[in-house]
Amino acid sequence: MDMSAYPLLEGIDEPAHLRELPQGQLPRLTEQLRDFLLESVARSGGHLAAGLGAVELTVALHYVLNTPYDRLVWDVGHQCYPHKILTGRRREISRVRKIDGPAGFPVRDESPYDTFGVGHSSTAISAALGMALASRNRGDQRKTCAVIGDGGLTAGEAFEALNHAGDVRPDLLVVLNDNEMSISENVGALNKTFARLLAGGVYGNFRAEAKNMLEHMPTPMREFAKLAEEHVKGMLVPGTFFEELGFQYFGPVDGHDVDELVTVLGRLREMDGPRILHCVTRKGKGYAKAEANPIAYHGVKAFDPAAGLKSSAEPAPPTYTEVFSDWLCDMAEQEPRLWGITPAMREGSGLVEFAKRFPERYLDTAIAEQHAVTLAGGLACEGEKPVLAIYSTFLQRGYDQLIHDIALQNLPVLFALDRAGLVGADGATHHGVFDFSYMRCLPNLTIMAPADERECRQMLSTGLSLDGPASVRYPRGKGPGAVPDQSLETLPVGRAEIRREGRDVALLAFGTMVAPAEAVGAELDATVVNMRFVKPLDEACICDIAERHERIITLEENVIAGGAGAGVAEALAAMGLERELLHIGLPDSFVHHGERDEQLELVGLDTAGVRDRIVAWLGREVVSPVSSQ
Amino acid sequence: MDMSAYPLLEGIDEPAHLRELPQGQLPRLTEQLRDFLLESVARSGGHLAAGLGAVELTVALHYVLNTPYDRLVWDVGHQCYPHKILTGRRREISRVRKIDGPAGFPVRDESPYDTFGVGHSSTAISAALGMALASRNRGDQRKTCAVIGDGGLTAGEAFEALNHAGDVRPDLLVVLNDNEMSISENVGALNKTFARLLAGGVYGNFRAEAKNMLEHMPTPMREFAKLAEEHVKGMLVPGTFFEELGFQYFGPVDGHDVDELVTVLGRLREMDGPRILHCVTRKGKGYAKAEANPIAYHGVKAFDPAAGLKSSAEPAPPTYTEVFSDWLCDMAEQEPRLWGITPAMREGSGLVEFAKRFPERYLDTAIAEQHAVTLAGGLACEGEKPVLAIYSTFLQRGYDQLIHDIALQNLPVLFALDRAGLVGADGATHHGVFDFSYMRCLPNLTIMAPADERECRQMLSTGLSLDGPASVRYPRGKGPGAVPDQSLETLPVGRAEIRREGRDVALLAFGTMVAPAEAVGAELDATVVNMRFVKPLDEACICDIAERHERIITLEENVIAGGAGAGVAEALAAMGLERELLHIGLPDSFVHHGERDEQLELVGLDTAGVRDRIVAWLGREVVSPVSSQ
Repeated sequence: MDMSAYPLLEGIDEPAHLRELPQGQLPRLTEQLRDFLLESVARSGGHLAAGLGAVELTVALHYVLNTPYDRLVWDVGHQCYPHKILTGRRREISRVRKIDGPAGFPVRDESPYDTFGVGHSSTAISAALGMALASRNRGDQRKTCAVIGDGGLTAGEAFEALNHAGDVRPDLLVVLNDNEMSISENVGALNKTFARLLAGGVYGNFRAEAKNMLEHMPTPMREFAKLAEEHVKGMLVPGTFFEELGFQYFGPVDGHDVDELVTVLGRLREMDGPRILHCVTRKGKGYAKAEANPIAYHGVKAFDPAAGLKSSAEPAPPTYTEVFSDWLCDMAEQEPRLWGITPAMREGSGLVEFAKRFPERYLDTAIAEQHAVTLAGGLACEGEKPVLAIYSTFLQRGYDQLIHDIALQNLPVLFALDRAGLVGADGATHHGVFDFSYMRCLPNLTIMAPADERECRQMLSTGLSLDGPASVRYPRGKGPGAVPDQSLETLPVGRAEIRREGRDVALLAFGTMVAPAEAVGAELDATVVNMRFVKPLDEACICDIAERHERIITLEENVIAGGAGAGVAEALAAMGLERELLHIGLPDSFVHHGERDEQLELVGLDTAGVRDRIVAWLGREVVSPVSSQ
Repeated sequence: MDMSAYPLLEGIDEPAHLRELPQGQLPRLTEQLRDFLLESVARSGGHLAAGLGAVELTVALHYVLNTPYDRLVWDVGHQCYPHKILTGRRREISRVRKIDGPAGFPVRDESPYDTFGVGHSSTAISAALGMALASRNRGDQRKTCAVIGDGGLTAGEAFEALNHAGDVRPDLLVVLNDNEMSISENVGALNKTFARLLAGGVYGNFRAEAKNMLEHMPTPMREFAKLAEEHVKGMLVPGTFFEELGFQYFGPVDGHDVDELVTVLGRLREMDGPRILHCVTRKGKGYAKAEANPIAYHGVKAFDPAAGLKSSAEPAPPTYTEVFSDWLCDMAEQEPRLWGITPAMREGSGLVEFAKRFPERYLDTAIAEQHAVTLAGGLACEGEKPVLAIYSTFLQRGYDQLIHDIALQNLPVLFALDRAGLVGADGATHHGVFDFSYMRCLPNLTIMAPADERECRQMLSTGLSLDGPASVRYPRGKGPGAVPDQSLETLPVGRAEIRREGRDVALLAFGTMVAPAEAVGAELDATVVNMRFVKPLDEACICDIAERHERIITLEENVIAGGAGAGVAEALAAMGLERELLHIGLPDSFVHHGERDEQLELVGLDTAGVRDRIVAWLGREVVSPVSSQ
């Protein structure tokens, strides 16, 4: 990018250069940083609104803290682009989230300034607390700071960390970046508390007035007030919530006034103990279109900043998310007991329409996956039909609840697992590549994976019709294009579908791998089975296939370890059938960011990769032991 | 049991009978219930101190609520024995936690009064919220009440649920049973807040005084107070923490005054919206020995109430927990960077001695598994050597953190997984039977399972020596009796140990299954391998074994689906080796309470069961397809 419009920014290859600037130049720097960020993300796509809102905060933090010696931990990381720009990655940021560019989130391997890798919310205080305790035990003078959004604070882990930090009392500064947003609007009672704190300047006055009032109390009253000192503090200090968790509360301050931020952070830096700075920002700040619609500008594709985002008017084949969205509304009309639940992903999970049409059966729990799962269990206890729409990767947050509250009690909750498999630009933290493995080991759970959009709708209807828990996992984006009909028909449980009869070798494919399996199967004249159910497996079909084929290949978009193919191997062993078996799936390593197509190619799960792998295997070239580590 | 000492209790076969009693008789009933509970648990063993502390609360709740129409949800369930006694299970309670008796926790299948199955803490508010919302949507007049301890409130899910409930505002009563304990002493900053609220009666007075004060303020001051109404409320109402989460706070009340409880609960029953009653109890109440030592009397074996618990003076072979405890202290002396972390299980996990000797490197996070895992990650980032001692079943609570914060970043954190496999009387919620499956699918993680105590110590040293994350999973109680030496020697990573060379068939055994495999292997002249590593598997050894044996049997105390045996099958397939394969492990169903030996026998994992299974398989009787559902 042409840097002539960003002369101050051009001189900053690391935060030390930033710290050489006189404070008076910071407002100009923040302007340049914001403009640069907008220009850059408009070219590359990526997370925009959160970064725009964190420009001044980022500059002030790196100006005041001695990074990377001092530890700065960003929560979630949507807001980290300004941080990456200031920490030596200015040239690379225009390729953010591309396969050869920097990640969209902080990543430890990428830079010493990325102190902790993030992607899911609400871990920053925990990680920073660990760092601060390590520093304390060594007697280091290091400062540790975690930055967390108001959305991130709704998740239980953040509360756990505050409660622990307030008890062990390390030198830890938490900056609450309060923009009244997570990705959607933030919800939850605590949010209202924050909103109250923002009634512009009232509290500064109140503090003085209250002190005055106490001084003029009659003596016995003052004695009494002393007795109840802690609660009078609730009058003097607005952040009682944090005070009760053992934190000193400061703020609210204007998070777009870089001067005030530097001053306040400078003072806070010199203090000790757990302390929180409440900082008010605006998501999308400085770019009017993003300020007006921060949800749309949360994550964007490349666009023209002058024109703004284009609304895609052309009728496109529906994404899986849209298939789910339509099904949910159609089913809700038929089934008055159906509820739609999301942990703070109304847009991403396709619940916008449902929330409008069925508000009394729509629940946004905020970022609170554990609670969302158990809540669904409570509804199911009463005979309701809860549907939890949750990304595969986020269900990892509610795993114990899935086991105890749902599977163990065999409660009919339907999990609509979006973004299963490789997800593209969000990278390793957002792939849904473990769910077959971590769900298949659980009793009572029915696990489905559709081959196409039509089947996705059928499986959702099937899952809802069951007396126990069920999950349907589908990928990000579009499928092969099999447009669903309007019916709410179900599929027979545990029954696979033979797509193609062939010879010698059989391809048992799960979900997204049915399409490449069919393509390759036709070339090689192989039998192709759309397995449909990961659990219960269609053992009769597997037995039948094994009797007619000496060679069996399983295909899935999940890690091989413990996945659907492992289930086929277990079933074959249990039936006493030894067959040559090839498991095609994801490797035992984390897959980094890039386009979904690039990632599939990288791991050999695109059609060409699958073909090459199968041809090599059938040719019986020397197959060396494949390391599982 | 002879009921002549419990005449009132004898008449209560369901709560409706209780509600027929005049209120004046309740104090006598609570005396009888407490004495009965003590006599009963002293005979049967089980959870005692929590139940003793909840006697009056249980009586009052069933007296005031129209159970089971009104929903009463107990958190964790340690305190549920009085509830079970009053709800038709008086005769059965003396066989609590036995294979033919009631569970030690509420279980939905057991009684309509057990509205939600629990075992792990902090789910009750979420479940009750689901029930309350279902009721509201139907226009039912049903009341919903969750009872949660102060320990349970430290876990993030409880906070998530409070925050959501305070937002959607259903008719929901939360009773905080505050005894300043979880299983150990409770920790965390919030706990100090609760303690402040208990300064005997101050608040009742304060409320009146504060009101008076406001009335006598000069007018501008009153105007101002109005402006800041919400925070003045912090003066009037002590439970600001809950108020900020949208709950009306009442209390504290004496949780052992059944009259006061009935009065207060009666009034609260008639209200609407989210409300919390802070109720102060004493764990072990009414039995002096338990009051004096509630940790020891949390869960007990059968004992003589007059004499109290016997301290077991005889030198016994060490439990695995003790092996861990000794290793941790020995290693901490050598390794100044070692930290010991527990989520509120200091006693159970064997950290008592470490906490005494190395207090500056000991961290009790309270019940906060998510935070505990990420915290360990933060420490590891700084070059420290964190050891997280956690039950296998509780690590399910920190699964996403294990994936992102530890495995993805390849951080050297050692997980000491106690209570892996079947755990006996605690039943389905406490078995650690999924960890091989849910860990094996994760890249970078080394997974070990010791065959005996000596190897457990070696594996702990091995895990700590690695540059990435590692886990050692060991069972509840004692092992075969191989007393560890004092060294801190390590094992070669990914190397199995051939215990016995035999013919034709090879037994590949993991962890606890090595002992029965050796016994059966000797009888059948089979090869026996102690696999040691679930990941990385010793593929060279497996290849070697497969070349010399046509039949291979894997043995593990984990579910078969995706477990260690599935890993062996995957490795064989990857090496192009087809062999007759038998997976011996836990079935695809939940195993209920009983003695650990009984459970092992039930699932065929005792020596006799293993022998029978193998003999049948080798005999090649017709093996019918085994259903995986």
